[in-house]
Amino acid sequence: MSEYNQLTDSIAQELIGIFGAANVYYNDAERLEPYAHDEAAGCATRIPEAVVRPKSAEEISQLLKLANREKIPVTARGAGSGLSGGAVPIHGGIVIDCCRMNHILDVDKANMTVTVEPGVITSEINEMLRPHGLFYAGYPMSLETCTIGGNVAENAGGGKAVKYGVTGRYVLGLEMVSPTGDIVMLGGKLVKDVSGINLLQLMIGSEGILGVFTKIILKLLPLPKASVDMLCLFNSIGEAIGAVPKIMTEGGVIPTAVEFMDKLSFQTACQYLNETLPCQDTGAMLLITIDGADAAQVEHDYDVIGEQCLKAGATQVYVADTKANSERIWRIRRSVAEAFKVFSPNQSLEDIVVPIASIPDMSAAIDRISKKYGVLIPCYGHAGDGNLHATPVMPPEWTLEKWQETLPTLLMDLYAETIALGGHISGEHGIGHKRKKYMLKLADKGFLTMMQAVKNGLDPNGILNPGKIF
Amino acid sequence: MSEYNQLTDSIAQELIGIFGAANVYYNDAERLEPYAHDEAAGCATRIPEAVVRPKSAEEISQLLKLANREKIPVTARGAGSGLSGGAVPIHGGIVIDCCRMNHILDVDKANMTVTVEPGVITSEINEMLRPHGLFYAGYPMSLETCTIGGNVAENAGGGKAVKYGVTGRYVLGLEMVSPTGDIVMLGGKLVKDVSGINLLQLMIGSEGILGVFTKIILKLLPLPKASVDMLCLFNSIGEAIGAVPKIMTEGGVIPTAVEFMDKLSFQTACQYLNETLPCQDTGAMLLITIDGADAAQVEHDYDVIGEQCLKAGATQVYVADTKANSERIWRIRRSVAEAFKVFSPNQSLEDIVVPIASIPDMSAAIDRISKKYGVLIPCYGHAGDGNLHATPVMPPEWTLEKWQETLPTLLMDLYAETIALGGHISGEHGIGHKRKKYMLKLADKGFLTMMQAVKNGLDPNGILNPGKIF
Repeated sequence: MSEYNQLTDSIAQELIGIFGAANVYYNDAERLEPYAHDEAAGCATRIPEAVVRPKSAEEISQLLKLANREKIPVTARGAGSGLSGGAVPIHGGIVIDCCRMNHILDVDKANMTVTVEPGVITSEINEMLRPHGLFYAGYPMSLETCTIGGNVAENAGGGKAVKYGVTGRYVLGLEMVSPTGDIVMLGGKLVKDVSGINLLQLMIGSEGILGVFTKIILKLLPLPKASVDMLCLFNSIGEAIGAVPKIMTEGGVIPTAVEFMDKLSFQTACQYLNETLPCQDTGAMLLITIDGADAAQVEHDYDVIGEQCLKAGATQVYVADTKANSERIWRIRRSVAEAFKVFSPNQSLEDIVVPIASIPDMSAAIDRISKKYGVLIPCYGHAGDGNLHATPVMPPEWTLEKWQETLPTLLMDLYAETIALGGHISGEHGIGHKRKKYMLKLADKGFLTMMQAVKNGLDPNGILNPGKIF
Repeated sequence: MSEYNQLTDSIAQELIGIFGAANVYYNDAERLEPYAHDEAAGCATRIPEAVVRPKSAEEISQLLKLANREKIPVTARGAGSGLSGGAVPIHGGIVIDCCRMNHILDVDKANMTVTVEPGVITSEINEMLRPHGLFYAGYPMSLETCTIGGNVAENAGGGKAVKYGVTGRYVLGLEMVSPTGDIVMLGGKLVKDVSGINLLQLMIGSEGILGVFTKIILKLLPLPKASVDMLCLFNSIGEAIGAVPKIMTEGGVIPTAVEFMDKLSFQTACQYLNETLPCQDTGAMLLITIDGADAAQVEHDYDVIGEQCLKAGATQVYVADTKANSERIWRIRRSVAEAFKVFSPNQSLEDIVVPIASIPDMSAAIDRISKKYGVLIPCYGHAGDGNLHATPVMPPEWTLEKWQETLPTLLMDLYAETIALGGHISGEHGIGHKRKKYMLKLADKGFLTMMQAVKNGLDPNGILNPGKIF
C-alpha cells in the first residue's frame, strides 16, 4: 500500500548496525521465504523485505523508532504456528523473529512466578518447572511447537481452559515496546493491580498490532498431584453437550478439560491412527480430564461426573485408569486436525465460539450449512468452553477453484449463524488476516470504531502489523 | 477548567426531555450535595451541576452525544462507596446515578451466567443465585453496600481473590456506551473469545474514564458445598507471610482467602468490638478460608495448611468448626477499617500491593516510615495477594493542619518504597483523584503516555470522568 515506504539498502545498513549482520536477512530469498506464511491454510502470503533477530528490548525500540521515521511496517513473529495469518507481513516491511529471545529468566518459587522471554517454546516452561512442583496452566494444545510470546499475542487457549482459563489469566506482567518505540513495563509480580487502566490485558490477544513483548511474567499454580481421564459416549451431540453444565451445576465439579468429538471426527482420527475402539459408531463423545491435589479428590470428582453423564444419557462411561489408556484417548483427540489435513488437504480449520448451551443449536446450523453446500463439516473441540473446531473439508471431486469460490460464502454463513446464537467467530486462533473481511462485515460497528480509535492512539503511523483484525 | 462549558438552563431542559423531570436534579443543592464525594477520606469534593438517573443505555447514549456537543463533563456513579474519589465530579458537569438500572435481568443456569444492570447491589446477586447452587466469586468485601457497576469500573477485588481472582475474571460481557455515545456490546456468554482486541478487559478497572456500563454478563461457579476458617498465630509478620507460598507450593493447596492482621490492627478491632480473645499479644495472624466441593476435601486442605503453618513457625492453629466461630473471627477482620475510623477519624486507608514474598520487606519499610514521621501505620489486608491496607493514622496530639501537611510526603515515601519492591500503589481501590498526583510522579512515563493515547483515542473531547488516574 502506498502509505508505506520500501526498505532501502541504506535502511538495511542501519538494521545491520542495530542487530549485527548475522541477525539481518535482506536480499536473501531463501532465508526470507519461510516468513511469508504461518500455519493458516489458504491465507494470503507475502515475503518480507527484511527479517531481524533481536536479543533485547533496546534493539526492538531502536527498530520501531527507525520504522516510524521511515514509515516501514514491522511484524513480530513467534514460531509461525498461528492459524489466522496473524504473523504474515501482508504489507511487506520488516519481520521480527523472536527466536534469540528464548531464555527462561527467573523462576521465583516464593512468588509463584516465572519470567520468560517471548521466544521460549511453551512446553519448555513446564518441563523446567516440574521439579519445583509448579506449573503454568494457560498453555494451548500446540505447546510443543508454539512460543509463549505468540501465545500472549493471541491470548491462546488450550484444552484445560474450563478449569484454568486461557493465557491472559496467567500473565501478571509484560515488558513491551510500544508501537512508537518506548519500552514500557505493565503489571509485575502482582496478583492484584488497579494502578492505571488495564493496558496489560489490552495487550494480551492484540495480535501484534499494539506492541512487541520482550519479557513475560507468568503466574504459576501448584502442580496437580493426581489426574484422570474419562471417555463418555452418547447417542447425540445434544445429549453430550447437555451433560456439561450439569457436571458443574448439579455436580459442583469443575473439570480440567471437557473435549468433544462428533462421529466423523472420531472415526477419521481413529482411521488415521489405525486405532480400533469398540465405540466407533457412537454419535458423540466427551473426553473429560479431572485433576486435583490428591487421588481421593479426583476419585470423588469422577464419580460425580460419571453419574451426571449417565443421567444426561451417556450410553457408556470409561475411566482411563492408566497413563497408557489416557494417552490412547487423548492421542485420538489431538490427531483430529492432522487426520483431516492428511485425508483432505484442502480444509478450513475454524474455531467459532458460542455459549455452551447453544452448542446443540450450532451443531444443527452446521448440519444445515453442510447440506446446503454439499461440504462435510466435521466438528470437534472444547465443549466446556463452547469452542468448536468446525472444519469444512473440500469434497474430493471438487476443483480447487470451486472450493476457493465457495468457501468464503460458506464461512460467511457459518459465522453469521454463530453470531446469531450469541457467539463470536474466533475463540482461540484470532482474526489475523484470514478472518478480517468477515470481522469487518459482521462485527458491531461501534466495536470496530473503538478498536480503530485505540490502534490510532497507540500507533499513529500504523507501523505494527498493519492489515490485521479490522 | 476553561476547556469545559457550564450547564445552562436550556441544556437542563434537554436533560429533562431525555430522562423526565423526576430523574434530573438541577438547581437543587440538597439533592446534589451527596454526589460531591465518595468514601475516600480527605479527598477533593465538588457538587455536580446536575444529576441524571437513567433507565436505559439509549438514554445514556443521548446524554453523551449532548455532552460531547456542549463540552460538558459526565461522571458515572454507583453506590458512592469508592475509596479513591473516582466518582467525584471534580470538573463539575453531570453525574449519572445508576440507581434505577438495578435489575437482575437473566439467570442462565445452562450457561452458568447472570446478566445484571450496573446499579444492582453486589450481594443481591449471590442471594438470588444461592437456590440455584451457583455463585459469583469476584465480589469485594463491601458487597453489601457497593454496586456491581462500580465493582467493574474499579476491577474490585475481595478477600477471596487468592483462589477466585477479582471482578475482571468473571465479566464475560459488557454492554456499554462509549464516550462519544455509541452503544457497544463487548464479549458475550462466552468463556473464550479472541474476536478482536480485548476492549472488554480494557474497560474493567477503567474507573469511568472510557465508558459507561449498562449491562454486565457475569460468569458463575458452583456454590462450594463446604467451607472452613482457620486462625493461625505467629510471632512475627515475616513468619506469617513466609507460610503463604509454602501452603500453595509445598502443600499444593490454593486457599480461598489468606488475610493477615498485625498486632495493632487486631487489638484495635478487638477493642472496638469488645472482643476478648486469648491471643491478643500475638505478633501477626493469618485468617485462612478454604472451600470446596465436600467436607472431605476441605478437611484434607486444612490439615495440609495447618501443617505448613506450624512448619513455618505458627505458635497456634485454630480451626473454626462452627459458623458462629467463623463469624467471630471474620468480624474482627472486617471491623479493622471501621475501628480505626472511630478511634482516629483522620487516617488514610491505603491498598498498596507488592509481590507476596516482599511483604516482610514492605512491612519493615512501613515501620521505618512510621518512625520517621512519628505516625502509627497499622497494617492488615490480603496476604495471599500481597495487598496491604497500610493505614497511616493521625496522632491524637497533632493539629489537622500538621496532618494535612505531612500526609502527602508520607504517602509519597510509602508509594516510592512500594514501587522499589516491585509493587504498585493500588491493588483494589484504584487511583481516582486521590492518588493521581502520586501516579503522575511515580509511574513509568511510557505507561502514562500509552494510557493518555488510549483515552484520547476513545474520548477525544475528554468528556468522561475527567481529572482521574493521570
